[in-house]
Amino acid sequence: MKKLAIGIDIGGINTAFGMVDEQGDVYAESVISTRKYPLLEDYPTYVSDLCNALRTMIKSISFEHELVGIGIGAPNANIYSGMIEQPANLWKFSEEEQNRDEKRRFFPLADDISKAFGGVKVLITNDANAATIGEMVYGNAKGMKDFIMITLGTGLGSGFVANGQMIYGHDGFAGEFGHIIVERDGRVCGCGRKGCLETYVSATGIKRTAFELMATMPDRSKLREIPFADFDASMISAAAEEGDPIAKECFRLTGERLGRALADAATVTSPEAIFLFGGLAKAGKLLFEPTQWYMEENMMFAYKNKIKLLPSGIQGKNAAILGASALIWQAQA
Amino acid sequence: MKKLAIGIDIGGINTAFGMVDEQGDVYAESVISTRKYPLLEDYPTYVSDLCNALRTMIKSISFEHELVGIGIGAPNANIYSGMIEQPANLWKFSEEEQNRDEKRRFFPLADDISKAFGGVKVLITNDANAATIGEMVYGNAKGMKDFIMITLGTGLGSGFVANGQMIYGHDGFAGEFGHIIVERDGRVCGCGRKGCLETYVSATGIKRTAFELMATMPDRSKLREIPFADFDASMISAAAEEGDPIAKECFRLTGERLGRALADAATVTSPEAIFLFGGLAKAGKLLFEPTQWYMEENMMFAYKNKIKLLPSGIQGKNAAILGASALIWQAQA
Repeated sequence: MKKLAIGIDIGGINTAFGMVDEQGDVYAESVISTRKYPLLEDYPTYVSDLCNALRTMIKSISFEHELVGIGIGAPNANIYSGMIEQPANLWKFSEEEQNRDEKRRFFPLADDISKAFGGVKVLITNDANAATIGEMVYGNAKGMKDFIMITLGTGLGSGFVANGQMIYGHDGFAGEFGHIIVERDGRVCGCGRKGCLETYVSATGIKRTAFELMATMPDRSKLREIPFADFDASMISAAAEEGDPIAKECFRLTGERLGRALADAATVTSPEAIFLFGGLAKAGKLLFEPTQWYMEENMMFAYKNKIKLLPSGIQGKNAAILGASALIWQAQA
Repeated sequence: MKKLAIGIDIGGINTAFGMVDEQGDVYAESVISTRKYPLLEDYPTYVSDLCNALRTMIKSISFEHELVGIGIGAPNANIYSGMIEQPANLWKFSEEEQNRDEKRRFFPLADDISKAFGGVKVLITNDANAATIGEMVYGNAKGMKDFIMITLGTGLGSGFVANGQMIYGHDGFAGEFGHIIVERDGRVCGCGRKGCLETYVSATGIKRTAFELMATMPDRSKLREIPFADFDASMISAAAEEGDPIAKECFRLTGERLGRALADAATVTSPEAIFLFGGLAKAGKLLFEPTQWYMEENMMFAYKNKIKLLPSGIQGKNAAILGASALIWQAQA
């Protein structure tokens, strides 16, 4: 009987899910809104609506199959506890709620979903870790024992693999490489501190760089016609492709910050390869070339010209669902 | 029959070794000069003299025992290849040697010693990794799955443990945390780059800080009476204990650099504890207090007040021998 796993990707706007086999082929997929359930008290309804949508998807599979498990990628998810712990943008306190006890904002999603499906194995971790395991199971990191995954979305996520195992750390929250501080008193970060790597290297980071450069560089640029509120990182890629000097400088600076940080990361885990994943990585050589150059320029001699900088092998809109489902196949291996 | 392992610590000046049981009790120890064998062509004689000294030590054990293996801590040692690879200060080319082929400076010490002792298991890694495994086997990291070891000697060494395993990395040279760059165009480092952590945080680093501060601070200080050539990091500890303002500022600045770097390291491996080991760590609260303060000050909220900063549990002159012998017990576990 065909074995299938479900992968669920929980974002702030939507929750996407699909049924995936061990080779990474997707047999069904669907989506529900996450945003429709914004408050703490909406969580039980969210779980029940999600489970109903999963049941509908499972029924849509026309051949006989065995559901071996459900993997979930979600912000602030802890693989050890199975909980989503104090997520910044999910199931928040209502405005009027005075007596805020943050301990109430621990959501035991793995247990809740497992119960709804007769005790099936449910594993949950953050989206960057899920992408990392996806790369090991389906992607370009197959067979690698030591590598680093960098996910470039709204923020910068990371996953470190050493000795063939994901580094979750003592409390399940390892791999927050977006929050190393690369500039003292630098840009304000959503984490409450200043100068974190992701304030420079991420879709949001490069947008901030563009606006900084429009202030400091005198060059003509199409980007000057777009207001901040309408501005998107992909516009910088498009402009850079056309030779826009500010857009090109944006990528050079982003590559410089990222390359330096990766040279430092190499001293910790000495990886075989570093993968770049996510929207900003789609800029291709615009990002890869300066990143590679600054990485090598700053690398300690012991690692120089040894570590591959590679695009993720998992592309397309299913990438996050695949990553989440990979949790199950990896746990079976 | 009592099982014993040999631990060998190879330094630039001396090679110390001892016979150790699984509890960390040392039954015999001795030392030979390393410095007596400075050149490439001295290596075979060094090996043969070392093996003879080991045989003499083994014979000195008066009770029946089984030698289960030999662990070695040495600079630039690679656990995968069993070699010491291009060490900066061991078995160098002679002055007149023109045709320098660096590939000739790979020394297969693990194999060479194993052959001399009838094929006994020989493991070799760098001294910081050996100290890390020593901490796991005999010290304060017993039972911990995720921790970081920082060794503060002439340089700054490190060992990262995740999922209960040492991170050696793809090529065996992981854990060079002393060479993350903490200051762009900062102090010149022995590795050929600038601004590496160890140029600030190490016995040599704090000495450099002292001389910088004697230039920038007007305060009276005993340290001003000591020439650079006679100056030792322990003099800064002694002066700080007596309230010397420059010496105290040395420790604050060292703790600031180290604390910030450890806050960044925490984002990668999310450890249960961070251990400080080596000469400079003996300064105790002079070093621990500012390090802890700056570490927490710079820590991302997810890790704040969770990670213990602890002294190594392995003290005394045998520490390096113990660490090296621990390689054998860990491999047996």
